[in-house]
Amino acid sequence: MTPSITQTSAPVADSHVSFYADDLTISFNQNPTQFTDPRTLMMKMTDHMLQANWNVKTGWSAPAIIPYAPLPLDPACSVLHYGTECFEGLKAWRNKKTGKVHIFRPDLNARRMNKSCDRIALPSFSDEEFVKLLLKFVQIEKRFLAWEGEVEMADEDDHDFLYLRPIMIGTTPQLGVATPSDAMFLIIASRIPAYNSKPLRLLASSPEQAVRAWPGGFGAAKVGGNYGPTMRPMSAAAKHGYDQILWLFDPERRLVTEAGAANFFVVWSTPAGKTEIVTAPLSNGTILDGVTRRSVLELARERLACESLEVIERDFGIDEVVKAHEEGRLIEAFACGTAFFVAPVAELGVDGRDIKVPLESNGKSKSYAQTIKKWLTEIFTGEVEHRWAAEIE
Amino acid sequence: MTPSITQTSAPVADSHVSFYADDLTISFNQNPTQFTDPRTLMMKMTDHMLQANWNVKTGWSAPAIIPYAPLPLDPACSVLHYGTECFEGLKAWRNKKTGKVHIFRPDLNARRMNKSCDRIALPSFSDEEFVKLLLKFVQIEKRFLAWEGEVEMADEDDHDFLYLRPIMIGTTPQLGVATPSDAMFLIIASRIPAYNSKPLRLLASSPEQAVRAWPGGFGAAKVGGNYGPTMRPMSAAAKHGYDQILWLFDPERRLVTEAGAANFFVVWSTPAGKTEIVTAPLSNGTILDGVTRRSVLELARERLACESLEVIERDFGIDEVVKAHEEGRLIEAFACGTAFFVAPVAELGVDGRDIKVPLESNGKSKSYAQTIKKWLTEIFTGEVEHRWAAEIE
Repeated sequence: MTPSITQTSAPVADSHVSFYADDLTISFNQNPTQFTDPRTLMMKMTDHMLQANWNVKTGWSAPAIIPYAPLPLDPACSVLHYGTECFEGLKAWRNKKTGKVHIFRPDLNARRMNKSCDRIALPSFSDEEFVKLLLKFVQIEKRFLAWEGEVEMADEDDHDFLYLRPIMIGTTPQLGVATPSDAMFLIIASRIPAYNSKPLRLLASSPEQAVRAWPGGFGAAKVGGNYGPTMRPMSAAAKHGYDQILWLFDPERRLVTEAGAANFFVVWSTPAGKTEIVTAPLSNGTILDGVTRRSVLELARERLACESLEVIERDFGIDEVVKAHEEGRLIEAFACGTAFFVAPVAELGVDGRDIKVPLESNGKSKSYAQTIKKWLTEIFTGEVEHRWAAEIE
Repeated sequence: MTPSITQTSAPVADSHVSFYADDLTISFNQNPTQFTDPRTLMMKMTDHMLQANWNVKTGWSAPAIIPYAPLPLDPACSVLHYGTECFEGLKAWRNKKTGKVHIFRPDLNARRMNKSCDRIALPSFSDEEFVKLLLKFVQIEKRFLAWEGEVEMADEDDHDFLYLRPIMIGTTPQLGVATPSDAMFLIIASRIPAYNSKPLRLLASSPEQAVRAWPGGFGAAKVGGNYGPTMRPMSAAAKHGYDQILWLFDPERRLVTEAGAANFFVVWSTPAGKTEIVTAPLSNGTILDGVTRRSVLELARERLACESLEVIERDFGIDEVVKAHEEGRLIEAFACGTAFFVAPVAELGVDGRDIKVPLESNGKSKSYAQTIKKWLTEIFTGEVEHRWAAEIE
């Protein structure tokens, strides 16, 4: 008799549930980009893309890493007409001392992308398989983060990233407005420069004229329809020297929502002398559940909150910010997101005048934004070990 | 001395202003679709597409009619990420008696598409050149509306159309959220069946849960972001047997806006005994300036309005409709749009109950919807001569 073997049964791969990393095939680009200094590749797409296709009847195909190339899309396909598209953005970074590459909390991007897909009538997938594929893809493309022979930057905080862009698009050629029967999942990447954290000038929008999102809409989903319509207002603001729009909501209450495509935080002291770090809540579905936002909140609650400092998610109006400024209680403000990281705000354009926002907390050597940014940097660069940094093998 | 010649100087074609029909080139499809009965081609795309490309520096390229084929789009291009896309829809129809093909008010589609392009940060073009190109394209593809040898339909009102779909998409490969520097204009077409005007069942949305558009948003522009996000709510409504959602806006006032992707009209008598044909106004920017909507309003004002019948554009709530129903004053309701044409509404699902909407006006042989539909049909089929019908040579 053979001894009985206790086996944890592997889950059966079901193509209607997800794509699977175990099914991944790789076709290497036969003309790989030649370079000695990867900084010359800035903003260029890398050599490969990861692709998986879905059909409502057959489910997901095996994912494949293939040479980066144009997609032959039918002119009638859903994404080009009805905005059936969503995306994610995250960064891979190489620690120059250890040579190791990390990405930051990819599980949160997986979960959010699934939510966006559901909102925009695209198929779902397993969060775990998404993360596995993302790590595999970075493993193939991490040479674009080469550090041997790379000239050290002047500022050691100034790191270049591999920006990772997963997208999902509806590919059914069909002129009727209907849920797509076919979709494509892609991961593409580009080397991008570290965001230079020049303090931002934000222009508060007029909620009678331009509104980014609405309760019952889709402001919490990372879908194309949240971005294209912001470009004209953004260009108009840029003509007046503003970096981004601070999106207000509701003509009466003028609630502060997002800064450009990033989340927004304000730090003020209350008339009673308490310090508050405040950001808009997720409850009304008008702002994005940012990975950086969530991380800032968690770190601030873990490491800053005390008797005299509170971290708060609640609705607040631009008039509260103006009042705090007028009463000398405004401590600082910052925007955060994958693209911006944690960027201090220097000025807020409100009702035709510019409010100067303090850049250093009163009497302290570092602002809250700087402190939190330093903590986050230590984590995603792998300088300190932390559960949020996923290491690429 | 040569006599002076008075010449009207032709406008100089400026590629930064528009594409031009005079520059059009045609490459015929070498494998044209073979058919004897064009009805077998239903929902298939025709043999050609019209394409013009734009770049911010060089302006518009010469437009070209080329064989219908997949578009090789860079995976990083704007339209796939940020919803930089807009479209139009219109129908070409062949009069079986005269053999002539007409399209309906293409100048209005040109104007609206320019507005949509502006809203979504895409380039503009000349309305006139758009119409000229559309007519040229239909001239090439009108064989898909062949009528010789075509079996007559049982119902003479039941006509097949060539559905024309102009689109504009942002094609710049660029991962940053920014106005595209490149765009593509396309016209594609498909033969589609006449909409079978089975009376519709509409489900009034809960404006706390699902909102199509909002003031300061982009509900008046024909951009992708207005369509993708409606698919999940629409599927949920379809599971309960509804054909479309009647989109309400504002939790308190519950204003009636659009029916699916069509405009909505209600006909009721006032307590004072006057008849009113009512639809939502364009003023708050949440509904589409429909070509059919506009035509219905114009014809109704021209041919129906009198001392006792008024045609009105104003905000109205679903509760007014319910009240009119309860008091026996609801005469009829209909949806209208290019896809639906003029479709009577049989039922409205409101707050968990279904309101039966009369399908025939009290005591009259034809409903207002039927009357207006007949007038519109006579115009676009070329049965009566009218300035709204553009004839294809």
